[in-house]
Amino acid sequence: MNTVVLKYGGSSVSSVEKMKALAQRILQRRDAGLDVVVVVSAMGKTTNHLLELAHEASSSPSKREIDLLLSTGEQVSISLFSMILNDMGYPAIGLTGTQAGIKTKGLHTRNTIEDIDVSRIQKHLSEGKIVLVAGFQGVNALGDITTLGRGGSDTTAVALASKLACNAEIYTDVQGIYGVDPRLYPNANKLDFISFEEMKEMAFLGAKVMEPRSIEIAHRFNTAVYVGSAHEDVPGTWIKESDASMEEKSISGLSVSENVMMVNVRKLPAQAKHMANLFIRLAENDINVDMITQSQHPNGMMDVAFTTSLEELDMVQSVLKTITDEVPQCEWDIDQDCVKVSVVGIGMRTQTGVAAKLFALLSDADIGFKLVTTSEISISYTLSKKDKLRAVDVIAEHFHL
Amino acid sequence: MNTVVLKYGGSSVSSVEKMKALAQRILQRRDAGLDVVVVVSAMGKTTNHLLELAHEASSSPSKREIDLLLSTGEQVSISLFSMILNDMGYPAIGLTGTQAGIKTKGLHTRNTIEDIDVSRIQKHLSEGKIVLVAGFQGVNALGDITTLGRGGSDTTAVALASKLACNAEIYTDVQGIYGVDPRLYPNANKLDFISFEEMKEMAFLGAKVMEPRSIEIAHRFNTAVYVGSAHEDVPGTWIKESDASMEEKSISGLSVSENVMMVNVRKLPAQAKHMANLFIRLAENDINVDMITQSQHPNGMMDVAFTTSLEELDMVQSVLKTITDEVPQCEWDIDQDCVKVSVVGIGMRTQTGVAAKLFALLSDADIGFKLVTTSEISISYTLSKKDKLRAVDVIAEHFHL
Repeated sequence: MNTVVLKYGGSSVSSVEKMKALAQRILQRRDAGLDVVVVVSAMGKTTNHLLELAHEASSSPSKREIDLLLSTGEQVSISLFSMILNDMGYPAIGLTGTQAGIKTKGLHTRNTIEDIDVSRIQKHLSEGKIVLVAGFQGVNALGDITTLGRGGSDTTAVALASKLACNAEIYTDVQGIYGVDPRLYPNANKLDFISFEEMKEMAFLGAKVMEPRSIEIAHRFNTAVYVGSAHEDVPGTWIKESDASMEEKSISGLSVSENVMMVNVRKLPAQAKHMANLFIRLAENDINVDMITQSQHPNGMMDVAFTTSLEELDMVQSVLKTITDEVPQCEWDIDQDCVKVSVVGIGMRTQTGVAAKLFALLSDADIGFKLVTTSEISISYTLSKKDKLRAVDVIAEHFHL
Repeated sequence: MNTVVLKYGGSSVSSVEKMKALAQRILQRRDAGLDVVVVVSAMGKTTNHLLELAHEASSSPSKREIDLLLSTGEQVSISLFSMILNDMGYPAIGLTGTQAGIKTKGLHTRNTIEDIDVSRIQKHLSEGKIVLVAGFQGVNALGDITTLGRGGSDTTAVALASKLACNAEIYTDVQGIYGVDPRLYPNANKLDFISFEEMKEMAFLGAKVMEPRSIEIAHRFNTAVYVGSAHEDVPGTWIKESDASMEEKSISGLSVSENVMMVNVRKLPAQAKHMANLFIRLAENDINVDMITQSQHPNGMMDVAFTTSLEELDMVQSVLKTITDEVPQCEWDIDQDCVKVSVVGIGMRTQTGVAAKLFALLSDADIGFKLVTTSEISISYTLSKKDKLRAVDVIAEHFHL
């Protein structure tokens, strides 16, 4: 029998009533002859509520205990969902991350999935049961409960589908993947298909629909992922291996990230060891650096600028303090008036002149940029916040996104 | 270093603020040089709230999923409590029933503890950590999360103390064990000590402070159990092995159970197999039968009466229907106008005439009874509800409880 992994997010399971409505949709898949695994998130605002309790308990709660606390949210969801399906006459069973064999490694609150022992899931599927798996969580080698960080339930679903060699279907509040966020550009087109590479690039660049990690896993295992509406019966978007038709378009998508700040470090001695030292320290503190530029001056000094996410503000400041302790003449500032606009398209590989066209568009619209970086299939600009919507407009209009 | 197991119930951990107040009391024990294990229940009304969700999800939720659901309550408590202690500068770690090595067997929602692998707890204690253990839960041989039924957190605490060869201290809303429930008899005396046997008898007979199962475990392992107030610094009651001084009193306690109904089965053929059949069916349905009487008639028929708890009403009725299907002339009714009043005292073993005195007291007060049963250290009467308070008064007054 064919298997499918369905994933439902927190807002679609925010009440028992909503779960009952979803159950109908799940049972249609079951009745169509599929073995069904359902990954569910915590109900509605549960995770936020638990985090509030944690911060009431401690100003800096231990991350191991945060994981222990937050993982209860999904456990409640799978229990209730399983009861609902059983009540409708369909045998079902709920499994925590631990019970579902989801082995993780890494740091608490941001673990990664190391492997999944799907034998218990397969056993229950072969018994004819619908298996509900708690998203976002797993168990580490110490037997401690771990969570997967932001977008973790998507990661659970895609990793499970990869291991079970089937498709993953992610049901959310949006109808699919758009070339541009419709809230920024109301004429945005919904895509029927997008390649793993484009989606990954868009996710890294700030598109909020899917986390990059899930797409990476899907890409590695060639697991097709569907993203669609949890509530409406309208076609969504398939994320899958690229084919020739996809390469015809030079640009498939545009994404905007506001969760970005630019860090300028000036007057570092122009030696590779100083550059290395800076980025090793940042990495040691788990700070993901995105765009980097460096410029050398005749006086033997260099300036380095990089972007990172706003959450890292405190951590970045403390790293930079250790740098200035060692290199006292070094100066730094952090620019929070930033937004990153990126265009993505696997067509860029074969079509020339896309970058040139983009520079011309921005220049004609009198939009300056602070940083620019390019990859094989994307170009990203860091702009001032005031220019965000105009940049989206001129690019989306020109490339018919 | 000496170890102690402390247990706090749901109403004493109903908010983070209350937990912080309790943390101070726990740290006093730690500062006094003890290794501390703390068993906590779910916060306040959490368990009831989760049960409401379960009944919204399904009219007859699967018991396995009920356990999966309810166990999140204690997991939230240990996470938050651990954060609070860490925040106060005391290393602490929260362990679920599974992580604490609590192995259970039996039926979901009413499992019993089979064994506890305390090695992880001991490891953390030797690291100088305060160990918070989720009460009421464990894991069965299938890896499924189980719960221990009513009073389960007390059972967790006493079983842990037994395995760690230390005392258990149960902190609750009451100040200790009373000879009579003070709500029924305001002049009731709080006991400094009570023997395992008396406490077990009183618990079985309806005293609500401790569940019989915990006392059984304590008795088996000779684990001293203290019951006291979670909020006030007043002496509570030690439950421990009996000594000579305890035997001087003929009666230590009186307990009243209102959760009782009497089942009368009439016109069964007076053969042992019919009696056996009835009680085997009841046992198969997990119905605990308490008092039993049987009377034979010259016509070859017998009447059987027994008491059981009110929750079993539906189940008892369906069992009795199968009996009348097989023995059509048999009749039955259920009497819910029942209350059970029991007196307990290990002194009864050595002092004669206690039963006679009780019969005389009830008779003088013109109180009739429906059933009476005696054990080595207790006598129980089933009375009409209207006679409850008068019976308590005459007995408590006569025996200075």
